[in-house]
Amino acid sequence: MQEMTNKRGRRSRNRRSGKASPAIVRNVDYRRLRNPFQPVTAISTDEVEDIHNTALRVLEELGIKVLLPEAREIFKTAGAKVDETEEMVFINREIIEAAVASAPKSFVLKGANEISTLAIELGNLTFQPGGGTPNITDLERGRRPGTLESYHEMVRLTQHFDIFHMVGPSVEPQDIPVHLRHYETTKAQLTLTEKIPFVFSRGKQQVMDSFEMIREFRGLSENDFQADPYCYTIINSNSPRILDQPMAQGLIDFARQGQMAILTPFTLMGAMAPITVAGAMTLSHAEACAGIALTQLVQSGAPIMYGTFTSNVDMKSGSPAFGTPEHFRASIVAGQLARHLNLPWRCAGGSAANINDAQAAHESQMGIWSCMLSGATTVVHSAGWLEGGLTVSLEKLVTDVEMLQMMAELCHPTKAGSSEIGFDALSEVQPGGHFFSAGQTMERYQTEFYQPLVADWSNFGNWTENGLVDANSRATEIWKKIVSNEINLNHDPERIKYLDEFIHRRTQEGGAPIDI
Amino acid sequence: MQEMTNKRGRRSRNRRSGKASPAIVRNVDYRRLRNPFQPVTAISTDEVEDIHNTALRVLEELGIKVLLPEAREIFKTAGAKVDETEEMVFINREIIEAAVASAPKSFVLKGANEISTLAIELGNLTFQPGGGTPNITDLERGRRPGTLESYHEMVRLTQHFDIFHMVGPSVEPQDIPVHLRHYETTKAQLTLTEKIPFVFSRGKQQVMDSFEMIREFRGLSENDFQADPYCYTIINSNSPRILDQPMAQGLIDFARQGQMAILTPFTLMGAMAPITVAGAMTLSHAEACAGIALTQLVQSGAPIMYGTFTSNVDMKSGSPAFGTPEHFRASIVAGQLARHLNLPWRCAGGSAANINDAQAAHESQMGIWSCMLSGATTVVHSAGWLEGGLTVSLEKLVTDVEMLQMMAELCHPTKAGSSEIGFDALSEVQPGGHFFSAGQTMERYQTEFYQPLVADWSNFGNWTENGLVDANSRATEIWKKIVSNEINLNHDPERIKYLDEFIHRRTQEGGAPIDI
Repeated sequence: MQEMTNKRGRRSRNRRSGKASPAIVRNVDYRRLRNPFQPVTAISTDEVEDIHNTALRVLEELGIKVLLPEAREIFKTAGAKVDETEEMVFINREIIEAAVASAPKSFVLKGANEISTLAIELGNLTFQPGGGTPNITDLERGRRPGTLESYHEMVRLTQHFDIFHMVGPSVEPQDIPVHLRHYETTKAQLTLTEKIPFVFSRGKQQVMDSFEMIREFRGLSENDFQADPYCYTIINSNSPRILDQPMAQGLIDFARQGQMAILTPFTLMGAMAPITVAGAMTLSHAEACAGIALTQLVQSGAPIMYGTFTSNVDMKSGSPAFGTPEHFRASIVAGQLARHLNLPWRCAGGSAANINDAQAAHESQMGIWSCMLSGATTVVHSAGWLEGGLTVSLEKLVTDVEMLQMMAELCHPTKAGSSEIGFDALSEVQPGGHFFSAGQTMERYQTEFYQPLVADWSNFGNWTENGLVDANSRATEIWKKIVSNEINLNHDPERIKYLDEFIHRRTQEGGAPIDI
Repeated sequence: MQEMTNKRGRRSRNRRSGKASPAIVRNVDYRRLRNPFQPVTAISTDEVEDIHNTALRVLEELGIKVLLPEAREIFKTAGAKVDETEEMVFINREIIEAAVASAPKSFVLKGANEISTLAIELGNLTFQPGGGTPNITDLERGRRPGTLESYHEMVRLTQHFDIFHMVGPSVEPQDIPVHLRHYETTKAQLTLTEKIPFVFSRGKQQVMDSFEMIREFRGLSENDFQADPYCYTIINSNSPRILDQPMAQGLIDFARQGQMAILTPFTLMGAMAPITVAGAMTLSHAEACAGIALTQLVQSGAPIMYGTFTSNVDMKSGSPAFGTPEHFRASIVAGQLARHLNLPWRCAGGSAANINDAQAAHESQMGIWSCMLSGATTVVHSAGWLEGGLTVSLEKLVTDVEMLQMMAELCHPTKAGSSEIGFDALSEVQPGGHFFSAGQTMERYQTEFYQPLVADWSNFGNWTENGLVDANSRATEIWKKIVSNEINLNHDPERIKYLDEFIHRRTQEGGAPIDI
């Protein structure tokens, strides 16, 4: 990406000056980011303590419904009170405190290679594209249910942009039956990207199949695989206070194999959660702590990410909203709670708009800023989400990437040494002159500024002459080019063959139905 | 605004519950805002000192060209070295330091009444709509040169939204000749708003006419008027290092009458300023300090705002860009410099897009966030700016107001007391239940959440049935309704009559040509 824009810049400049010059490529690292902003606080330390303690009281006194017998058994063995008839688990605070203590504060999430490997800890910053959507939309083909082709396009876009550090849950390829879907999604992630693959927790067999594909494709022994996380899942509790079977099973299986789970209650204020930010975050925190506890009871030190996804609904219609002031506040409070636990954590952007218009862009920005300022380690749904996650838009994915690239730019320092302050450069230009050809400018013009991906800065006259092309249409040209690019990651043909054979065999055996 | 949306919310809710309930109106103050964010820093304290000292060295050694003889004389009297042939003034640092010391750190900017009166000091936050544009655009009438009708529409929108604290330079009413234009713009501001009026510094006579209109209309003696600022001007130095005649004259006249000037160098990195953020800010700081010095030499304690407007150009085309990472960095550094001087200051958002698409929204958000996080006292061009200020868009003004209202929401605290955390509310809802009818929800549903101005959160099906209306079209309905509303500010008819007679007389006398 960076290389592409800069080559363009260089050529154009060479045309202008009419002479050849060595290629100077602007090279800003978007792969390894530290959040440059001090986390913002919305509530006092005492209030954080109050929320934490109330959440523990919720787990102890009100309990959480755990639908998977194996999970209830694990909690019971650890000393939790269990009501088998009601499937309720009452978790005492010692269990939570021990889990928070044993959950790793920092760990490495291993991609296909060094450059796609991530250090997961508070202070670091990673992004995932918008995902988990049943539908996909673009200006040319319209809104439609996701297919394997859509899934491949999303994975290709994820690979293309350095700013995406993990593959997300992406769009659902609904032309592939659910019991075979994970074969195709795991294969696509392994063969088309180097980035961290996502595995849906849809029953033990799907998870085990996916682990096997990843392990074999990466050439890892079982021990190697279990020593570090190579993939991740997202676990949503069913708020309020239910952990269902596939989710509990996913937590257990990922923890046993040392793979990463992101525990994200999805708590919409006024609907599945209290109407107040503090109340919704108390519920979210309780559910997250319960899930974290389950992983640590299964395997102490299993890599886990604290998660939150708390926004509000429209009280007139019940529709979810994103990028609202309440969503923003909830993210900030979630960051305070994650730091209270000292755990890496997941936050999210998103938009409830139906198309990629000004509303959509504003909501996505508010969401992303809430993630930036709350010190999120991983930002989920950071690009492309529309309709509160019912659709991912390819043109929105591109316009949101511009936003994320700008955030990544801000992760790099502002230089203000003597050569930047530049008294000499200032002396060189007389009052009323210009700096276009100043020495400092000539040294830096190819590399000083961010080169936009989709923004068009031409004036109204030129823009009109060029056909009045809006951001969505420009974004369309961009994603179309990217998804048609050939991807060659130099995979060993034997490994591709292995994947195909594995899929063939498991398909013959009946695949992996979700019911567990 | 707030009242309108909430009345709507209430009615709808009453329909749903089928019973009458007392009117509960969500009432969040958007008029008096404190910025809730700790200012962010981009460079070290030493680097801030280096920029400040280099800027003083620029003024001392390189000098600034001051085109107005009276201004050169003032600097000369204060001890600056003046080269009359070259019109250059070399300002020693003692002059700047004395000016920074005498410039007020806090003052009151008086509107028509208590509610529109503003405390101007670091930490407070005020917004102005986008302005200074030759053109105006909207979906129905297209892009066209501004007229008095356009100007009136902008003023009406400014009055309508609580989030606008001052009238901006707005759109140029080009159907009124320049020598008479200030009569119409000042009259419109006085009669259609209660907010702080803006006066263009286009020569002494225009400024004096405007002062007289404001003074008489507000019913103030000359002493009263001079005791507090009742209006303001924006002074742009001509970067690099020129202070032209009308700008210098404006600084002098506003300072003499105790009215507020905002001193804003417009320094585009790579064009009128060095290509580096630090270099451009050094130049901007030097020019701002020179202007501030002039006001304080005229009248010690004259109300002045430190200003910056620093963004970058596209190095391929020279086109200005806004909402870029470099614009963001420059704002953060400017905030550090303003705090170094301990002066209230002006920053700006803006967009270089040609229409209100995703690019425009993203750029405006990046700009506004740079203002929020750099601790700006006044945010200029905070809504509606397109084409880097060549056009103001009425639909964009409305979609940007939504962004500003969300910022204003964030200025109010997040409550996390025991009634918000609400253990009882959490106890009330069983696992898998919902909070729609919980007691806490019923108490708060009318007031807990921000009610959107233009965002549409309906689902795709409803949105499609309702005609696939995008944010710009919804914004169009909103501004059209506002500009057609009757405005009744209960003005004394005698004062209106005074304005009309004044304008008639001055027009007969030939108005006020700009040449001074």
